Amino acid sequence: MKKLSNASALPYYLHDFVSAFNEIFVFLHQTNAKNMKKTIFLFVMAMVCCIVKGEAQTQPSPTAKQLRWHNAEMGAVFHYDLHVFDGKRYVQSENRIHPIEDYTIFNPTQLDTDQWIKAAKTAGCKFAILTATHETGFGLWQSDVNPYCLKAVKWRDGKGDIVRDFVNSCHKYGLMPGIYVGIRWNSLLGIHNFRTEGEGEFAKNRQDWYRHYCERMVKELCTRYGDWFLIWFDGGADDPHGIGPNVEPIVSKYQPNCLFYHNVNKADFRWGGSETGTVGYPCWSSFPTPCSHHKGIETSPSWLELLKHGDKDGLYWLPAMADFPFRGINGRHEWFWEPDDNNNILPLDSLMSIYEKSVGRNATLIMGLTPDPSGLLPEDDVKRLSEWGNAIVQTWGCPIAKTAGNKNKLYLRLPSVNSVKGYRLKEDITKGERIRSYKIEAKVGNRWQVIAEGLSVGHQRLETIAPVSTQELRLTVTQSVDTPSILEFSVY
Amino acid sequence: MKKLSNASALPYYLHDFVSAFNEIFVFLHQTNAKNMKKTIFLFVMAMVCCIVKGEAQTQPSPTAKQLRWHNAEMGAVFHYDLHVFDGKRYVQSENRIHPIEDYTIFNPTQLDTDQWIKAAKTAGCKFAILTATHETGFGLWQSDVNPYCLKAVKWRDGKGDIVRDFVNSCHKYGLMPGIYVGIRWNSLLGIHNFRTEGEGEFAKNRQDWYRHYCERMVKELCTRYGDWFLIWFDGGADDPHGIGPNVEPIVSKYQPNCLFYHNVNKADFRWGGSETGTVGYPCWSSFPTPCSHHKGIETSPSWLELLKHGDKDGLYWLPAMADFPFRGINGRHEWFWEPDDNNNILPLDSLMSIYEKSVGRNATLIMGLTPDPSGLLPEDDVKRLSEWGNAIVQTWGCPIAKTAGNKNKLYLRLPSVNSVKGYRLKEDITKGERIRSYKIEAKVGNRWQVIAEGLSVGHQRLETIAPVSTQELRLTVTQSVDTPSILEFSVY
Repeated sequence: MKKLSNASALPYYLHDFVSAFNEIFVFLHQTNAKNMKKTIFLFVMAMVCCIVKGEAQTQPSPTAKQLRWHNAEMGAVFHYDLHVFDGKRYVQSENRIHPIEDYTIFNPTQLDTDQWIKAAKTAGCKFAILTATHETGFGLWQSDVNPYCLKAVKWRDGKGDIVRDFVNSCHKYGLMPGIYVGIRWNSLLGIHNFRTEGEGEFAKNRQDWYRHYCERMVKELCTRYGDWFLIWFDGGADDPHGIGPNVEPIVSKYQPNCLFYHNVNKADFRWGGSETGTVGYPCWSSFPTPCSHHKGIETSPSWLELLKHGDKDGLYWLPAMADFPFRGINGRHEWFWEPDDNNNILPLDSLMSIYEKSVGRNATLIMGLTPDPSGLLPEDDVKRLSEWGNAIVQTWGCPIAKTAGNKNKLYLRLPSVNSVKGYRLKEDITKGERIRSYKIEAKVGNRWQVIAEGLSVGHQRLETIAPVSTQELRLTVTQSVDTPSILEFSVY
Repeated sequence: MKKLSNASALPYYLHDFVSAFNEIFVFLHQTNAKNMKKTIFLFVMAMVCCIVKGEAQTQPSPTAKQLRWHNAEMGAVFHYDLHVFDGKRYVQSENRIHPIEDYTIFNPTQLDTDQWIKAAKTAGCKFAILTATHETGFGLWQSDVNPYCLKAVKWRDGKGDIVRDFVNSCHKYGLMPGIYVGIRWNSLLGIHNFRTEGEGEFAKNRQDWYRHYCERMVKELCTRYGDWFLIWFDGGADDPHGIGPNVEPIVSKYQPNCLFYHNVNKADFRWGGSETGTVGYPCWSSFPTPCSHHKGIETSPSWLELLKHGDKDGLYWLPAMADFPFRGINGRHEWFWEPDDNNNILPLDSLMSIYEKSVGRNATLIMGLTPDPSGLLPEDDVKRLSEWGNAIVQTWGCPIAKTAGNKNKLYLRLPSVNSVKGYRLKEDITKGERIRSYKIEAKVGNRWQVIAEGLSVGHQRLETIAPVSTQELRLTVTQSVDTPSILEFSVY
């Protein structure tokens, strides 16, 4: 009995069938069932389940946690690790294999996670994520599983817990806390792409041990700090049937309301195909597979395009995430603080463009922020975040007028003639992404003039347009699946 | 230019020459010197040095620290590591490759190193050694190099330092503290016989890192706890020109008075060829190479015999060590506490035999003691140690009579006729081991009757004999190098 593995070659609607078949295979393998009648029964049951599920999914819609994802719109990820303190430029490939020689360099004497979170909040972030561990394997908490953690350093007499501080600050300022966990690389333990090195029994034991080590670490993080909004596995959490740890069941068990990102089979959102803070347009939340890094699809030449755009016919709700590092100009692209990067913070116009090309395209935006060795987010970043937040409110905070309705055409009359420079659309995604194309017209003189056209709307579509003087506008859904349910049509 | 490596095939008096040549080779290799005149000059100088050194060493003698080793006579090594707490039988080969899953099991709530040291002292120990790390890699101190240490556990709120406690207890009770450092194996880091696993740049980096890691750990242990009597590298400290760490220069720099045991080039004493607590007889302190685990000699088929007996013509002073685990009968041989071993403590008569076949044969004895998960040496061991110490004093504490002198023949007249059951000989080893054979006679009736014969004496020869009634005895040194310098001839 051979495991069916070339799922990618099959049409999308058969993926569930393949997945169920594989689960049966694993079940049989584990139980050594040899009763063929039982096998056939399970096989047929799986097919029935798949057909039922497939039908229900022709118009996918978000889960409760995915709705929170959409509504959050913007968040920050804070990267912090030992090498922030080494005074050198960070080279990821080297960091993965060179353990930091002296971990006692970790000494953020002014650490203040309140300052981090307040700064993120001024930009408009609704959630914040912390790298509890990154690729060194060093943990920013008081772990009882990973000794290479804040227990080991002299800072705060070995009693510091930045994960705890971070969560407390998030709660204090009303942001949802998320956690980023590195298990794919571990320079201290010599883990390389999930893999322990060596041969024979030694390697097998070590691989088994590392798998349990990660699983226990994840359980610790999932049970100590209250509810997580999101858990992010650095570089993915591998194939649960492969060599790596199987963390998804742990997250599901202890954090049922937490967004899971991601292993080869499952993700609650998808990477948006670049680290530019933008996604493509259109950008659908639906996707052909239950994970953006699904084995069957990752090798496809059109994979990046699919990540950027989604697939309006996809059976799975897998909304896009657009991430970018805040220090990312002049050839720099830095997730961690490094010396002399203060001049490489993105300028305000770039940030506004990023906002529109992510939050305005139905994606959730995650910005990378970089606390420095003192333990603070540098003042220049804090200032830019505040400027950005102000500019977003100024541009998109107060519509001239807005309307809503469950129909293909909506009219919007302004109190007076205004120069319209942008619009917002939102549909009720609990019913799926029904809008497939739209146009917006403005009455200029006595003629309706098309001022914008588009495809996906989903949670939100924002677009700046060439300014037009008008008092009357109309939205026409030119193509839809079922009746569109428009939550907002507003102009700015 | 090829390094001369088959030193073992050469006569002993050429070993120094080979060693010097190798050092020159390394020097030239490092400096890339191409000046042949300089090379030839160094070469000739080395030969001269060797000849001079060789002559001076025809009768080797101990260094100051080796004299301390001889005078100590008896010590204990305390093994303590994570697996003491796992409730399972210890299997060394598995322990080396299976990291302990949950290190928080380490919780010796009643830990009392005073109790350990007092118990060792009652047996007669003059020094005590602690496994600061063994093969798990877990460190029993507050390391700033090795995070897998007492900082990581909950015991004593992560602030315990058993190395510190141990040293304090040694000082309190007048024992010399020693330390045992595991660097050859490290189950957490996946180190296998000094070797990090993997390939290419990854493996090279990791090997370099591990080397520095060990060296920094050794420096930490050599600079924090005052003077060490002895430092023992678990399974040796490898070849300083090999893949492993080069720890000997660190020990020499920070602990110049500490006995070093051992790497492939150097040891201040030698393993006595078994873990039975005994050495062979004769047992000479001289040895053909500067280390018992010298590459050139370790592969010899007569290696174990050489370790047990030494070599009276050897150019190096390398006295013997006899080690054994206190729990070592009924097929058990346990360096660590394990469940249900209380009945496997050696009986008193075995211990007395061990004493005579080690301390009585010019070797220093090291017994392995096993603190339990509560943090105490079990009561049964404490009791047996006390019994043993009392028996040693009773048997060997009060001579009937004693004498000394720098001559080949010494007479000893007892206050009255006595039953003589044993004798003690000691020579002044600062002058080397001059006595090469001896006999002891007792006057029985009017005839001198040989009651004992032997070869090596060195620091001490003790032997029980078939009881003989006599009032007059004589020692004859039947063969010697130069005039013997006898510090003690006594009978019991």
